Amino acid sequence: MFENKNGRTELSALGEFGLIGHISQHVKLHQPGSLKGIGDDAAVIDNGPGRTVVTTDMLVEGVHFDLSYCPLKHLGYKAVAVNLSDLCAMNAQPRQILCGLSLSNRFSLEAVEELMSGMLLACERYGADLVGGDTCSSAGGLSISITAIGHAQENELVYRSGAKVNDLICVTGDLGSAYMGLQLLNREKRVFLENPNVQPELSGHDYLLERQLKPEPRVDMLQRFTSWYVKPSAMIDISDGLASDLMHICKASGVGCKVYEEKLPIDHLTRELALEFGIDPNVAALNGGEDYELLFTLPLSEYGKISDRSEISIVGHITAADEGYRYIDRQEHEHELRAQGWDAFRS
Amino acid sequence: MFENKNGRTELSALGEFGLIGHISQHVKLHQPGSLKGIGDDAAVIDNGPGRTVVTTDMLVEGVHFDLSYCPLKHLGYKAVAVNLSDLCAMNAQPRQILCGLSLSNRFSLEAVEELMSGMLLACERYGADLVGGDTCSSAGGLSISITAIGHAQENELVYRSGAKVNDLICVTGDLGSAYMGLQLLNREKRVFLENPNVQPELSGHDYLLERQLKPEPRVDMLQRFTSWYVKPSAMIDISDGLASDLMHICKASGVGCKVYEEKLPIDHLTRELALEFGIDPNVAALNGGEDYELLFTLPLSEYGKISDRSEISIVGHITAADEGYRYIDRQEHEHELRAQGWDAFRS
Repeated sequence: MFENKNGRTELSALGEFGLIGHISQHVKLHQPGSLKGIGDDAAVIDNGPGRTVVTTDMLVEGVHFDLSYCPLKHLGYKAVAVNLSDLCAMNAQPRQILCGLSLSNRFSLEAVEELMSGMLLACERYGADLVGGDTCSSAGGLSISITAIGHAQENELVYRSGAKVNDLICVTGDLGSAYMGLQLLNREKRVFLENPNVQPELSGHDYLLERQLKPEPRVDMLQRFTSWYVKPSAMIDISDGLASDLMHICKASGVGCKVYEEKLPIDHLTRELALEFGIDPNVAALNGGEDYELLFTLPLSEYGKISDRSEISIVGHITAADEGYRYIDRQEHEHELRAQGWDAFRS
Repeated sequence: MFENKNGRTELSALGEFGLIGHISQHVKLHQPGSLKGIGDDAAVIDNGPGRTVVTTDMLVEGVHFDLSYCPLKHLGYKAVAVNLSDLCAMNAQPRQILCGLSLSNRFSLEAVEELMSGMLLACERYGADLVGGDTCSSAGGLSISITAIGHAQENELVYRSGAKVNDLICVTGDLGSAYMGLQLLNREKRVFLENPNVQPELSGHDYLLERQLKPEPRVDMLQRFTSWYVKPSAMIDISDGLASDLMHICKASGVGCKVYEEKLPIDHLTRELALEFGIDPNVAALNGGEDYELLFTLPLSEYGKISDRSEISIVGHITAADEGYRYIDRQEHEHELRAQGWDAFRS
């Protein structure tokens, strides 16, 4: 997308306006609602009749990503993807993106181009337009702030608060793979730090690495829900882990839940690597996080419409609030479901 | 707004969700279009028929602010104000705000409360709702990312690109005062660093300090334009300085400009302090920045409607592109107008 140059252009040689101008060249608008993009005080959007849905996320170097193993293009892609995933979790179609960047002097223009090419690739794949943003310098590392704007009809929106007793608890895709991808990258980084001459052993792990480095928002599910004539009663995307995110639905809906170990969708690659690392694959699935799959509830009456869909696993059901959050293992022992997901202020 | 406690509560004791829950308690929604605020994957907004206008800005510690002299409450207020100022510059009414925060461990809950109370004060004053955001930890200092959403009818919007030859160049309020406020704070910081026992000499400078620490977006002008039956042909808010921002209008409109020294609106407090500091007051007005006044152009035919409005100064007029960007001093000598405003990647 951006020209591949071998040189290094200092951002200070361009200045802020030069950088914005440079980035703007590569941005194309596709959405008819994107009336005005980069280049004025604000973007102008016509989201038509219906509802405008907006979400924002910050990604900070050293907290959310480690540039020693996360290529900038992947990082840009992921920054957009996780925000689009939040729109999907509302059952809203992605439309526009705004992007804030703070960069220290160690980043060159070529580095920014790499990052932006990943963002624009995600925008293109999911039909969102980059309509504005802000760039500035930072004393420390790289911070990325993305705002995503989506659109839905009022009756299409799905909130966290709609789960009812006896609803089925469903997830798309498989869980724990992004977490195992991260463990793999961490191991190779440790090996590298001990001996920089050792080649990283990442072959055969493409799937797990891709799940960590290049998650895909489940925009495809919006269309599927429509074609299957189902509408989730509550929905969230899995960023912190199934347990933590299910508890968000339960709290917002005033209900409890039961989740079954034997129902957790875990890919065999995830399972094998977890065992190799001495990690319980179920813990990876429940608490690993960053899956960016959709977790949703459906009335029991809808069971027939989704029971044989390969995209979906039914992992449990909603209970009354006083039954609490329960996890049933393969031996049919009950445990309390615990959110051990990543918490931003603990480390 | 937040309870005044003397203790210090570590953010790690609350965790991210605790912090979000704590902040949410203090957030009230007033806009009928704010259908869903904090607490789901995304906010839901009904901006009705018309246009949704969106802008985003990042503020980074050590680059945009210095906490040694910028109180957190003022910083929160300013972070919101500068984004609302961008909406004003589109002639759009502020409606909603989203806020991203990345915070290092040295910030306590009480510090976040101070910051948020300033943000909410600005939201309240200008009738915007805080509908969402993101919080995370950072290895370094504090970064604030604000996204502001506004609303306008299609025919109300004003872009940078509408200036025509012979249009009047107008500014609201006075210029250079925020810059002199910053010089004052910098001087007192240097004195303090040399001798922490010396009391800061800030008395008598309330106006200049307030202009720097607590700028007010000119939301009032939107109503005035309507009541005066005028609509700017082009508009921008002055964040980088009159010269730099006027050149943005000229470039977007494909025109040139003439600005007159004797027309620059400079408060006598700004002028006196500038002379005391050995700074040319005109340079402060042209290149100081952070005024957050509106700079706009109007067809010459509208002169009668605004010529005796105290809120507005006519500082020059638009010329053909080939006449360039010109600055006429009191001796009627012509100079090239130069943008020496703050540039994010030079320092």
